[in-house]
Amino acid sequence: MSVPVKKMHLNLFVLNTGHHEASWRHPETMPKSVTDIHYYTRLAQMAEQAKLDSLFIADALVLTPAIQHKIGGGLEPLTMLSALAMGTERIGLIGTVSTTYTEPYNAARMFASLDHISGGRAGWNSVTSVGDVTAINFGRERHPEHSDRYEQAKEFLEVVKGLWSGWEADALVADKQSGTFADYSKIHPLRYKGNYFSVHGPLNVARSPQVFPVLVQAGSSDAGKELAAETAELVFTAQDTLEHAKAFYADLKGRMAKYGRHADELKILPGFSPIIGATESEAREKEAMLAELITPDFGLIRLSNSLEIDLHRYPLEGPVPLEDLPSIEQVKGQKARFEMLVDMVKAEQLTIRQLIHRTATARGHYTMVGTPEQVADVMEQWVKDGAADGFNVMPPYFPGGLEDFVGGVVPELQRRGLFRTEYSGRTLREHFGLKHPDAQPVVTTT
Amino acid sequence: MSVPVKKMHLNLFVLNTGHHEASWRHPETMPKSVTDIHYYTRLAQMAEQAKLDSLFIADALVLTPAIQHKIGGGLEPLTMLSALAMGTERIGLIGTVSTTYTEPYNAARMFASLDHISGGRAGWNSVTSVGDVTAINFGRERHPEHSDRYEQAKEFLEVVKGLWSGWEADALVADKQSGTFADYSKIHPLRYKGNYFSVHGPLNVARSPQVFPVLVQAGSSDAGKELAAETAELVFTAQDTLEHAKAFYADLKGRMAKYGRHADELKILPGFSPIIGATESEAREKEAMLAELITPDFGLIRLSNSLEIDLHRYPLEGPVPLEDLPSIEQVKGQKARFEMLVDMVKAEQLTIRQLIHRTATARGHYTMVGTPEQVADVMEQWVKDGAADGFNVMPPYFPGGLEDFVGGVVPELQRRGLFRTEYSGRTLREHFGLKHPDAQPVVTTT
Repeated sequence: MSVPVKKMHLNLFVLNTGHHEASWRHPETMPKSVTDIHYYTRLAQMAEQAKLDSLFIADALVLTPAIQHKIGGGLEPLTMLSALAMGTERIGLIGTVSTTYTEPYNAARMFASLDHISGGRAGWNSVTSVGDVTAINFGRERHPEHSDRYEQAKEFLEVVKGLWSGWEADALVADKQSGTFADYSKIHPLRYKGNYFSVHGPLNVARSPQVFPVLVQAGSSDAGKELAAETAELVFTAQDTLEHAKAFYADLKGRMAKYGRHADELKILPGFSPIIGATESEAREKEAMLAELITPDFGLIRLSNSLEIDLHRYPLEGPVPLEDLPSIEQVKGQKARFEMLVDMVKAEQLTIRQLIHRTATARGHYTMVGTPEQVADVMEQWVKDGAADGFNVMPPYFPGGLEDFVGGVVPELQRRGLFRTEYSGRTLREHFGLKHPDAQPVVTTT
Repeated sequence: MSVPVKKMHLNLFVLNTGHHEASWRHPETMPKSVTDIHYYTRLAQMAEQAKLDSLFIADALVLTPAIQHKIGGGLEPLTMLSALAMGTERIGLIGTVSTTYTEPYNAARMFASLDHISGGRAGWNSVTSVGDVTAINFGRERHPEHSDRYEQAKEFLEVVKGLWSGWEADALVADKQSGTFADYSKIHPLRYKGNYFSVHGPLNVARSPQVFPVLVQAGSSDAGKELAAETAELVFTAQDTLEHAKAFYADLKGRMAKYGRHADELKILPGFSPIIGATESEAREKEAMLAELITPDFGLIRLSNSLEIDLHRYPLEGPVPLEDLPSIEQVKGQKARFEMLVDMVKAEQLTIRQLIHRTATARGHYTMVGTPEQVADVMEQWVKDGAADGFNVMPPYFPGGLEDFVGGVVPELQRRGLFRTEYSGRTLREHFGLKHPDAQPVVTTT
């Protein structure tokens, strides 16, 4: 009798025409579909037919001149996911909302509403947003410092969880006979007073199926990991090697005990961007085709932003100027992304052009090229080795890269008993084996 | 040859179980459906089959103890309308968002997104929200004064219109060959600096079919009318008599010329809540049935709020204490609502209980009881007499009151040539005969 294998969790990261920087130039993709809800509905349905746990929409609150060479201008996540909820039945729907530039009362209402609309399939990726370029769209001159953003994020989480938890399960009675619509003794104001937010409550949306959305985070800095260990139920992370992924996994799960949490209460899904072919050479051809479409224009802007230095001033074929970069303490944006890029340059001695190509495939997330069996081998190894509870799947281009994944890799994982062949639950928490928030205490005042 | 009659416009005001305060106690209604998107989808589809121009969702950013006796706790408008867009094809979708408690960059994105998702059917009812009870959910102790709220609303409108207008029609090129995704010379930052908002832009959602949602307002105070005359394309208003409606119509349309606008560029839709029966006595029975279900509990709270005095301290069968009310200058909330109630009490010499009953049917909006022909007669008269361009239809209970309207009144209006029998346009602006925003100037800086 064989030991039952641990099943993995799969999330589809939906992003425009795909995760390869040049995907919008691929002959198969439809770049003008960025605002077409029917395009996204087809991708969501494809992922649902493959029984994926969830899909995820990233977000940024800014448009920069990089749009000259980079696809963008698409739909806002919460409206988009509410629409996708109507074209799907089981797959989880995870959207990004910023804790720096959103009113928590508004965010709490919208996620509660999405959770009702989807029948308990909502997830929230909380981010603190990036850069002064975002701040100036919200009446501020400067983006808050990293530590301030995390303090604010922590308060934001306390507020929205408190609002969501404020309605007891049987508060809404709707007793026509007595004329009692709700039992107000079971609807609790929050009366939160913090440094960043003061929110009285109660929430004006009735308790939703999951009580609150699955709490997702993707911050991989030290502060990000600490906040995730305390509050997150699902973590997306960019890890470029198995060793880094194992270290991150052990580090993050190891931080949970001090918050009274079990390691199983948080699932870690590294980004994973496979280029898949029926044969290895077919996969290599697909890789080469995408590589040919890369232009340095956008890559230079992207890396200049991440490394916080203007790379246009350096020769493309020369080394990445490590000596001119800011120190990690000086970095204002995503510290973990910065460190990963620097480590990559040091380990592989990359020129600027090489770094562009090395990260064009999925912005530094783990990439590989191979057959469905080879891809499944790697996924199996990562899960068995304690590097992942599953993957944030990032197809290089849509729909082809997703078709290759759901048509080749998913069946292979299912044959190996590593992935579900049918949904057993209805809600996103059930898909991920996470406990219902009923078991959690209600936040009242701070 | 007969002169072609002016067609009217019809909006369905969707509100929980209906507009009669006691509708949730009606045997036919399903009060727990307030969070059920499929319930709302059926209402929307019913309205669309009758070729109504649009449907509208009101909103408030607060939950009060009144929920003990009053139905509430439903869905947030923008997520709800995004979902409804997927279950309908032609009907317009108008949602309420507050200019006092929302970041304009976030609101602009969501409406642009809804306009894409719905194929050009989005409308935005901008409100300034009501009361300190709302303020305390957004980190403030006091709701801003009436005049401050309107100044802020004006800035908010300038910001979002500027953001929406910032993308020229041909900015998104997606030229795979050259690697140019967008022509950034055709995407204009806003660089707005006001007293309330500073927003740099550009918007990160590509130009939507209507460029921006149909701009709807419902403020009927002097400041509200002035803002509407300058900026609104559609106005919902509560008018309790034909004479009041005519005066309002003439007043508002008369204010438009000084802003360089033609009277046709704004459509006025008074609220209209008919109780309909195949015979007049059947209609009267329906009215009596609803009246029996009214409890004074909620009515006292509602009127105490509107009149800004605690009516619980006065005998229910006694007169409304006009002498103890604040002056119109002292009123902090909806001044037009306050005035309408005072006028009603003066004209009809009402007791508190009578005022509760008189306004329980549709909160002071015009109500009537009759057959489809009688209802159509009144609607025809209002439009012919220059009191309305159409109606904001407020069925007393769902779905019965809506079935009576679309099954009886709409066919009667169609027979008279007063309402469309088929949609001729695709977008909400086309349904209302409003011009495309292309013709309007781009706001850049202030």
